Amino acid sequence: MLKQLLETTAHIRALDSAAMQAARERQDQLTKPRGSLGQLEELTIKLAGIVGKARPRFPRKAVIVLAADHGIAAEGVSAYPQAVTAQMVLNFLAGGAAINVLARQAGARVVVADMGVASDLPVHPSLIVRKIGYGTHSMQSGPAMSLQEAIKAICAGIDIVEAQVEQGLDLVATGEMGIGNTTAASAIVAAITGSTVADVTGRGTGIDEQGWRHKVASIEQALTVNQPDATDPLDVLAKVGGFEIAGLVGVMLGAAAHQIPVMIDGFISGAAALVATELCPALRSYLIAAHNSVEIGHRVLLEHMELVPLLNLNLRLGEGTGAVIAMQLVDDAVAILDEMATFTEAGVSEKEDQVAG
Amino acid sequence: MLKQLLETTAHIRALDSAAMQAARERQDQLTKPRGSLGQLEELTIKLAGIVGKARPRFPRKAVIVLAADHGIAAEGVSAYPQAVTAQMVLNFLAGGAAINVLARQAGARVVVADMGVASDLPVHPSLIVRKIGYGTHSMQSGPAMSLQEAIKAICAGIDIVEAQVEQGLDLVATGEMGIGNTTAASAIVAAITGSTVADVTGRGTGIDEQGWRHKVASIEQALTVNQPDATDPLDVLAKVGGFEIAGLVGVMLGAAAHQIPVMIDGFISGAAALVATELCPALRSYLIAAHNSVEIGHRVLLEHMELVPLLNLNLRLGEGTGAVIAMQLVDDAVAILDEMATFTEAGVSEKEDQVAG
Repeated sequence: MLKQLLETTAHIRALDSAAMQAARERQDQLTKPRGSLGQLEELTIKLAGIVGKARPRFPRKAVIVLAADHGIAAEGVSAYPQAVTAQMVLNFLAGGAAINVLARQAGARVVVADMGVASDLPVHPSLIVRKIGYGTHSMQSGPAMSLQEAIKAICAGIDIVEAQVEQGLDLVATGEMGIGNTTAASAIVAAITGSTVADVTGRGTGIDEQGWRHKVASIEQALTVNQPDATDPLDVLAKVGGFEIAGLVGVMLGAAAHQIPVMIDGFISGAAALVATELCPALRSYLIAAHNSVEIGHRVLLEHMELVPLLNLNLRLGEGTGAVIAMQLVDDAVAILDEMATFTEAGVSEKEDQVAG
Repeated sequence: MLKQLLETTAHIRALDSAAMQAARERQDQLTKPRGSLGQLEELTIKLAGIVGKARPRFPRKAVIVLAADHGIAAEGVSAYPQAVTAQMVLNFLAGGAAINVLARQAGARVVVADMGVASDLPVHPSLIVRKIGYGTHSMQSGPAMSLQEAIKAICAGIDIVEAQVEQGLDLVATGEMGIGNTTAASAIVAAITGSTVADVTGRGTGIDEQGWRHKVASIEQALTVNQPDATDPLDVLAKVGGFEIAGLVGVMLGAAAHQIPVMIDGFISGAAALVATELCPALRSYLIAAHNSVEIGHRVLLEHMELVPLLNLNLRLGEGTGAVIAMQLVDDAVAILDEMATFTEAGVSEKEDQVAG
């Protein structure tokens, strides 16, 4: 399994600078003031570099939603009972959740996988089952999972995205479901960035002040008990992560190995991206930060990765919702690059060299 | 003409509070933590209030792009020659501009009108001609237009949007083209909000530091010469505005009179919204601020109207581009409200009353 992981990371190349240059030159010839489409212009240049084409398009889209439970949920860190993880997976499969609605809007297929829900889910033709366990152990008393399990979960994520690549995939978004997983994400971000737990811990699905203090104390205890090694992202992932977070690490690495850009969603996806980029720094160029979550730790991890989010809509739902919303911005940006007329084509005068007066 | 304006403003009603309450209650029953879709949830409640339905949808969309020239352009306040206004109108009609590409992405039709381009444009089946003049006068030496012309332009805007309503219209975006129109917009915002000219004047299509100082001085001179009355929005509009800006005032008022929400684009559209809301405060509830432009005066006018923008992508193109991009967020938001399953429908547990631990 470690071999699969190493082979995948070895396939992640630097971006294609010739394609990026060609995209930039074309942007500057289109009938608009240079740079006037701001982040959308920058986005097209990055996308060109990822796929190695001057005018890329991304018609085939998927959001990969990984679900798993967390031992820490038993410690009362969430506003919702653990059973909601399984219930929401059924909601995803029935098409009634926010991610289903937003993916339909974006033209993305929803891929749902059980990475370690605490119960056995009914068999469903659309449910991928790659269960690593029935929830992680509580990280308050020891590691959430073994190193072996972490690698197994990452490789499951690689397999899941590669199956999508075989079906045809141009753009992928990451999503997740797991009661308690903002707690795991906060622990990961604190461990890797060295931030204090209070600075990277939010209200999750909606706990009160007392609940928040308890959540912070739980994470601090987990870090004290486990002593994750900040320089070893797999150690951090195994000790204070989750099966769905590990799976997302694999999804990101697997997509980048196939030159597919990855829209990262909110705080949980961001924590997975943090682990994945520490593991393989070349991955960073393949990641598009979809939005800035209400979760305070999200900004910390984006700044650590030097990624600027596209949207800032006060989202805090997860599931991949922000990432699929931002897929429409990708479509807008590349349509501009591909379809707009140039100054020459349209017979429009370019900027005057000297401003009069 | 003044009668048409008065009749239009008289039709702009307060939002439907029963529909807003129904939308809010439904949002709280959907399978997601309350409020977790942030600005998108708030947006649906406002939209429900505008159209008076608990589950509104907006399939029929248009962006109305008004073009006109500005006498002040002769003073060298722009990086582009005045001829670009007419050239870009032809580009809009040929489908090669950014607004055409983005409107196709959003499923919106592009409606182009000549409100006062400095030259006669070739006859084109899709071009609406409501020319008030061949560009405004330079506001540096006197009023840009007469009060009569300002009212005539507003009424033309009302006519233009009402023709679209007759064709079927659920959501409208405002756009514009006019070399020199950031100068007019800055003058309007300074006059109405009382901000200093330097605080509301940006680089437009891309002037340098020297050009910027000249632009600020030109606007200061125009305000000194004309002494617009801050308490009389029509006086401000006539003295330092533009034909396309006045037309957009009419588009906004006309749309709101038909309970159609208005996506306002960047700085120029924002200046029109500022005039329109001063003229008719009830309009404000019908406006959706699409984005926050790079133009520094945009933030000032949005704060004055207490509108929070949806996007912050460093756009500064105009044409309605940001507004049509944000139309997709409207579709996303109302799809959520309309299509998601409730907790009861999906069999998902609601939030626990008390957080354990």
